[in-house]
Amino acid sequence: MQKRNATVAVIGAGDFIGGEIAKKFAAEGFTVFAGRRNGEKLAPLVRDIEAAGGEIHARSLDARKEDEIISFLNDADKHAPLEVCIFNIGANVNFPILETTERVFRKVWEMACYSGFLAGREAARLMLPRGGGNIFFTGATASLRGGSGYAAFASAKFGLRAVAQAMARELGPKNIHVAHLIIDSGVDTEWVRQRRLEALGPTALDDPDALMPPSSVATSYWQLYQQPRSAWTFELEIRPFGEKW
Amino acid sequence: MQKRNATVAVIGAGDFIGGEIAKKFAAEGFTVFAGRRNGEKLAPLVRDIEAAGGEIHARSLDARKEDEIISFLNDADKHAPLEVCIFNIGANVNFPILETTERVFRKVWEMACYSGFLAGREAARLMLPRGGGNIFFTGATASLRGGSGYAAFASAKFGLRAVAQAMARELGPKNIHVAHLIIDSGVDTEWVRQRRLEALGPTALDDPDALMPPSSVATSYWQLYQQPRSAWTFELEIRPFGEKW
Amino acid sequence: MQKRNATVAVIGAGDFIGGEIAKKFAAEGFTVFAGRRNGEKLAPLVRDIEAAGGEIHARSLDARKEDEIISFLNDADKHAPLEVCIFNIGANVNFPILETTERVFRKVWEMACYSGFLAGREAARLMLPRGGGNIFFTGATASLRGGSGYAAFASAKFGLRAVAQAMARELGPKNIHVAHLIIDSGVDTEWVRQRRLEALGPTALDDPDALMPPSSVATSYWQLYQQPRSAWTFELEIRPFGEKW
Amino acid sequence: MQKRNATVAVIGAGDFIGGEIAKKFAAEGFTVFAGRRNGEKLAPLVRDIEAAGGEIHARSLDARKEDEIISFLNDADKHAPLEVCIFNIGANVNFPILETTERVFRKVWEMACYSGFLAGREAARLMLPRGGGNIFFTGATASLRGGSGYAAFASAKFGLRAVAQAMARELGPKNIHVAHLIIDSGVDTEWVRQRRLEALGPTALDDPDALMPPSSVATSYWQLYQQPRSAWTFELEIRPFGEKW
Repeated sequence: MQKRNATVAVIGAGDFIGGEIAKKFAAEGFTVFAGRRNGEKLAPLVRDIEAAGGEIHARSLDARKEDEIISFLNDADKHAPLEVCIFNIGANVNFPILETTERVFRKVWEMACYSGFLAGREAARLMLPRGGGNIFFTGATASLRGGSGYAAFASAKFGLRAVAQAMARELGPKNIHVAHLIIDSGVDTEWVRQRRLEALGPTALDDPDALMPPSSVATSYWQLYQQPRSAWTFELEIRPFGEKW
Repeated sequence: MQKRNATVAVIGAGDFIGGEIAKKFAAEGFTVFAGRRNGEKLAPLVRDIEAAGGEIHARSLDARKEDEIISFLNDADKHAPLEVCIFNIGANVNFPILETTERVFRKVWEMACYSGFLAGREAARLMLPRGGGNIFFTGATASLRGGSGYAAFASAKFGLRAVAQAMARELGPKNIHVAHLIIDSGVDTEWVRQRRLEALGPTALDDPDALMPPSSVATSYWQLYQQPRSAWTFELEIRPFGEKW
Repeated sequence: MQKRNATVAVIGAGDFIGGEIAKKFAAEGFTVFAGRRNGEKLAPLVRDIEAAGGEIHARSLDARKEDEIISFLNDADKHAPLEVCIFNIGANVNFPILETTERVFRKVWEMACYSGFLAGREAARLMLPRGGGNIFFTGATASLRGGSGYAAFASAKFGLRAVAQAMARELGPKNIHVAHLIIDSGVDTEWVRQRRLEALGPTALDDPDALMPPSSVATSYWQLYQQPRSAWTFELEIRPFGEKW
Repeated sequence: MQKRNATVAVIGAGDFIGGEIAKKFAAEGFTVFAGRRNGEKLAPLVRDIEAAGGEIHARSLDARKEDEIISFLNDADKHAPLEVCIFNIGANVNFPILETTERVFRKVWEMACYSGFLAGREAARLMLPRGGGNIFFTGATASLRGGSGYAAFASAKFGLRAVAQAMARELGPKNIHVAHLIIDSGVDTEWVRQRRLEALGPTALDDPDALMPPSSVATSYWQLYQQPRSAWTFELEIRPFGEKW
């Protein structure tokens, strides 16, 4: 592995998508700064990446706190120039509208939209003086469609998409690639597996192609990173070959 | 005027769009419950509507407060069945991303999205037991497009649109017409006039067709209200005939 | 009924949607020029409209023939100024891609897209010198979504939508209201009833709200016609309250 | 270069985009079947690819002729399995609606939409029995937006997009990746350069980043080809970093 003088910040470095993104960029020579609510849970990821010869810095991070975001990204950037910032926090919930409490509505927004705004803005602040960088946001089916029961989740994801669009239009001409990756599929995480088992019964996981492996999300982010600036994509939508849409 | 046993709640009953909506529905026989931050400013609207033989109840209302929304709508519904609820609060601001403070981002969202969620949910709570009603939200160009500088405003408007979609999909089959009116134009308000004068100079207001009169917005809401349930529109986009799009 | 000095041309005046549009505008005082492939089939429509005191001129019209469109619209315009032209020809077919013959693909396009272009263009030619008019096109779910098996139909409907958009952007500033009405629902026609019975069995027609009555389409067109030019809608999407979307 | 036992068919192998796609896939070991109206103009492309050690078969092809498309693709497939088919024919014209002749409207559709349907269908016919393949279509800004003066061009491009969507939904589950690449930019071709010089004067070409190099389009197609089937993109939109959108 060729080491790069560059960091990638992964905000929302969970056990699945975020972890795979971290591994992919580490394998490509980036120093990884990985943040999640409880940083101790990053231990296995640290082990994996270091075992493969990569470099990772794991942090506890409440991304809803402006000061925490600022110091997390500044630390990353001091280590080596922050070249990529990936915001990957979700907050998928479903409630009938009458049961959607103001507390849920607000919390989902803070996690999935407001945090993304803070992360994107602070990444831009570090990248603009250097004249380049990449800021990526993870979206979902609910970024484009407000389904029944998804008032809170879709509202936050729609809102995050707007942040990404506004940033892309302002920062693209300044050589910062802002992109929004829409995952139009269930991703193969523990939480999704559990829900499928409950909904569809014990055969729900038999088809290996029914859920998107987190590593495919990482591959997609890597493709976005590799695009020449003469042909940037703002919004990349991915789904498994057999997905209905 | 034929008096109806029905109320319309107008949340965000400003001097322009909201006021015209109130007048239109009052003229059609509805009792109006009008709320805005400073209820005293509703005095001219009250005067106009009462002079025309209509009925209006003016209230101070901070729509970001759950309890205030609840009591405002409950009062309206006690007076006569709440048949229409129109959420009309905007919060148009434009800042470069680095100058978009977390305070602005949060406040714009609370005004333009979170309040709309509260209003829509509480209107639904009153309408569902009666098996019908109308819940309308005012959108803008920024509901569909995150332009440069509009991270805060577009994020809130995208988010409000998601709330409206989710509610429409859940409540439509229960006979509640949820609609989202997108005004793709400057509306003729004092604030817009002032901005145009600053941007375009003293001739900026010469063309009477360049800005949408608030009364046309009211007409559009009335058209939505009149649609038979066999042919409801969820999203109605309006613009003046000469508008570029 | 107050007679107007104005004609409406209905191209594709079938037994259901087109016929109801004709009746609605006739009832509002328009002289109707109604065209369909086999003009003799218009006899019942003529009878209904004349019985109600309206005026209708029924014509055989192959809308794929440029000269027939020209003479049909010119005749209408000579009678009284052509104020509204509504293009309402569909051609809904579904075939797997390998079974979509070039003949079907071409014919569906000629009926549902090319004819619409000819009709729109010739209506504009008559309306522009007078400085105003209305040109409306009937769309469908397939105007926005290319579903499996709909390569031919969706391609034609997408294409018609593009024609409508291009005309709206060019002609709006010249005071011609171009609109595209998307019916996102089955409409209650003999053909749809038959298909539902085949697909869902004898109870398929029990729910009176499952299909959109053609008269609701006519109502929607009337709403578009009534919009003030300060608040025109280009695309109006309608569906029954219980429709999944 | 590692030679593959696979062919790529490039339909519309012009001097710019199509030629670069051919070179890229040839460089990756594909045998190229390149078709354009006048096959003799392919001589320089043949020279380039062969000089680089690649394999190319150049053919005259009128893609509007069903039999020519069939024999072109069958020849390619006999040579080695047809793994990728890329349809790349455009027909950009702009006329006011009244000056859009029926001849232009029909011809643009035949070139940019109908040919694409034929190519896609016949590629699918060859790929389905083998259980896999890739069918890609080149789109443009006009695939999503019917601008003033673009009734003919946008109608054809909208129509092609519908074909691609319908095929993607039907063939995705059968392991055929159907994708639609939207180039939201001027591409650096002789024709575009000339138009820019006319419109903007002699400095119009000074900015090397203002136009998308054709090789970047080829790179984007290669990215689509490389996607794992667990994360396919249907629609990839690309634009240069400085493009307004």
